[in-house]
Order: sequence, then structure tokens, then C-alpha cells
Amino acid sequence: MSAYRVIGLSPSTCTQRTLFTAYERQATVDLVPLNIMAGDQKKPEHLAKQPFGKIPVLEMQDFVLYESRAIARFINDTCSSGSTLIPSDPKQRAIFEQWASLEAGTYNPHIEGLVAQRVFVPMRGGQTDENKVKEHYNALKEPLDILNNNLANKEYIAGPFTLVDIFFTPYINMLLQLPEKDLIESRPNIAAWWKRVSSRPAFKKLYKQVEEDRAAMMSGQK
Amino acid sequence: MSAYRVIGLSPSTCTQRTLFTAYERQATVDLVPLNIMAGDQKKPEHLAKQPFGKIPVLEMQDFVLYESRAIARFINDTCSSGSTLIPSDPKQRAIFEQWASLEAGTYNPHIEGLVAQRVFVPMRGGQTDENKVKEHYNALKEPLDILNNNLANKEYIAGPFTLVDIFFTPYINMLLQLPEKDLIESRPNIAAWWKRVSSRPAFKKLYKQVEEDRAAMMSGQK
Repeated sequence: MSAYRVIGLSPSTCTQRTLFTAYERQATVDLVPLNIMAGDQKKPEHLAKQPFGKIPVLEMQDFVLYESRAIARFINDTCSSGSTLIPSDPKQRAIFEQWASLEAGTYNPHIEGLVAQRVFVPMRGGQTDENKVKEHYNALKEPLDILNNNLANKEYIAGPFTLVDIFFTPYINMLLQLPEKDLIESRPNIAAWWKRVSSRPAFKKLYKQVEEDRAAMMSGQK
Repeated sequence: MSAYRVIGLSPSTCTQRTLFTAYERQATVDLVPLNIMAGDQKKPEHLAKQPFGKIPVLEMQDFVLYESRAIARFINDTCSSGSTLIPSDPKQRAIFEQWASLEAGTYNPHIEGLVAQRVFVPMRGGQTDENKVKEHYNALKEPLDILNNNLANKEYIAGPFTLVDIFFTPYINMLLQLPEKDLIESRPNIAAWWKRVSSRPAFKKLYKQVEEDRAAMMSGQK
């Protein structure tokens, strides 16, 4: 069994990508929390590892890596248990990379933008900008229709279950808690795909941990 | 020698990523132009290959692939000539993936956004939004400082020359034609890196072709 040391917090969306990947590969993660309410992510010690002042960071002896999708790929590449989450056939891998590129460049800016307005802005004491919510909502319609079509004859986004399904997970999970959840629920192939993703043991293990860690943080115990 | 069929236009930034990769690998590309001024990218025949109505698209027999970064990875994975542009050592590859993720998620939205305001908006008859230019300009300062630091002791972004240097190329090449070129020129390690990138034979071959194709398109011959 492989063990990875990740500086991060399970309630954080980007940390979730790395944990979901590790749990799919039956790897253990030593999660090292950072007090982001105290601004520890902007202190010199952390900036030396992650110059943008964000989480997660993977740290193993003298090797330091950031960007959640890169950490997920590294865990997948180096883990000795479980089976790979990136197809090895060149054409299948290319389709995986196509969707990985779309997730980062086309979907994530709007899914993250919508969730930020509804959840993170008020969390930090700000006010949701309803015009921005509407912009992101409208910008998601066409790409989600295309994703829905793509899932008509596939179990997962790139065919088999891969990292790209994991990359989408954290923000779609949050979107489903919001008034805009119809973006997902009204598209039957995406809704069916989500049922498959959220039924996976690694998903359940992750979100059980997220709930526990969030409760502990809220009660000030962690 | 491998030959790839790409539907695209060399003056288009995203097509340039696929051509630069092919030329680095000494592969030939059969570039199939699309009349985007006539809106051919939104016609059913093209949408069946690229549902977002964009270029480039790689097409080989029954295999169809889009997203320029995914096409570049596919060419790199399947080309029989030249040497790989993705490191094979897991830690080196992880650093490559970290920068590939940053390029797509952190840099490209602002570099593309700035170039769009200065070049593409006026090209389509619109007016540059100077507030948006300023927003993108300011948003690029910190990430470019971090890129400049990263290049202090490295020849290329991920160490050896890789696809991530290619991913950055088209928009930085355009940025250097704009009043905002000081974003690059004032950062000495990025400026030195750019000299190395733009001295490569594949870069020179590509941008000679871009100039020729652009001149032919402007004169209505192509």
C-alpha cells in the first residue's frame, strides 16, 4: 500500500480530487491540515511550497507538487495498489485528455464560478452577485448538453471510470446542493452518470470524511 | 515518418499548438482548412466532429479528436519520429502536469482574455474593453512573477523542453505584438526562455507558415 502526504482540508474542493483518487487506488493519505482561517496558506513556509498560496500540496521527502489535477495524476502514476485511472491505449487516452482539457478550460470556470457566488462569497461575508450566477448558469447550458450527449452510450465520461470523472466531482457535488441543481438533474445521462459516480465506495468514503471534518471544524475541535 | 490530418488554420492559436508539436516530432501534418468567415465551423458536418463548433480537429480514419492540448498529447504519444515531449520519470512528469494544469487554469484565461480584447474583438468589428484589458493585465502580474521565478534555474518551464512550453506559445507570441508586451519583456527569465523557444527550428517553421497562410488568406487566395 502506498501512502501520500497531502497538505490540505477535506472540505476543500481541490483537496477532494486528490483524496478521491487515492481512495480509488486504495492508497492511504496522511492529510496535514492548514489553518486557512488564520491565513497560514499565505505564510512564507507554505508559499515556499505553493507560491500561489493555495491548497492542496503533495509533499514527499524533498519532492513538492501542487495543482490538484497534477497531484491526482501523480498518485495514479505511482500507486502500487488498485488499477490505473488513465487509459493506456493511445486513442482511449486521447479521449480522456480531450475531456480533461474540456473540464479545466470549458466547464470548471463556470461551475466553479457559480458555486463561488452561491457558497464561497457569502461564506467570506460578501454578497452573491445574481448577474454573475445567471451568466455562469447560461454559459453552462450548451457544454452540459454536449456532456449529456457524450454520456448517451458511455458509463463514464471517457468510457471507463477515469480521473476526469474525479476532476468534475467536487463542484458538481456542490452544484447539486444549490437552486441551480436542475442544470444536472434535467439532463438524464448526466444524472445517471452522477448516480454511478456517487455510488462508488471511494466517493462514499471521501464524503463521509468531508462531513466529519466539516463538523469538527465548525465545532472548533479541529 | 507519421502524418496527421488536422482540420484547422495555421493563424489560429489553438491550431498552432498541434502544428508546433508535430514539427518538433518531425511529423507531417495534412492541414485541412475550414472557411470560418463563412461559418463552416457551425455547420452540421463539422459539429458532428467538434460539437462546440471550433478548430482544430484531428481526424484519422474513424478516429476524431478535439481540444488542441489533447491533440498535441496524442501526436506526441503516437509519433514514431523525434523524441517525447512529456517526461517519462514520474516526478518529472508530475512537474510537467503541474505546469500544464497552471497553463490551462491560471495563465491561459488571462493571456487569452487580454489578446481577445486587443486583437479578436476589433477583428470582429467590436471595441476593445479597456477595463477588461486592465483586469487581465493586473491578474497576470503575480502568476508571471511566479513563472519568472520558476525559470531562474531551468532552461524550459518543466525542465527539459516539453509540451507545456508549446501550450504557452501561441498567446505569448501574440502578447509580444501588443502594448502589454512589457508583461513578458520586464521579466528577464521569461524573456530568456522565450528567446530559447522562438529559436527552435520547429517554431521558425511554424511561424513562417503562419505568415504565408495569413498573407494568402488576406489576399483571398486561400
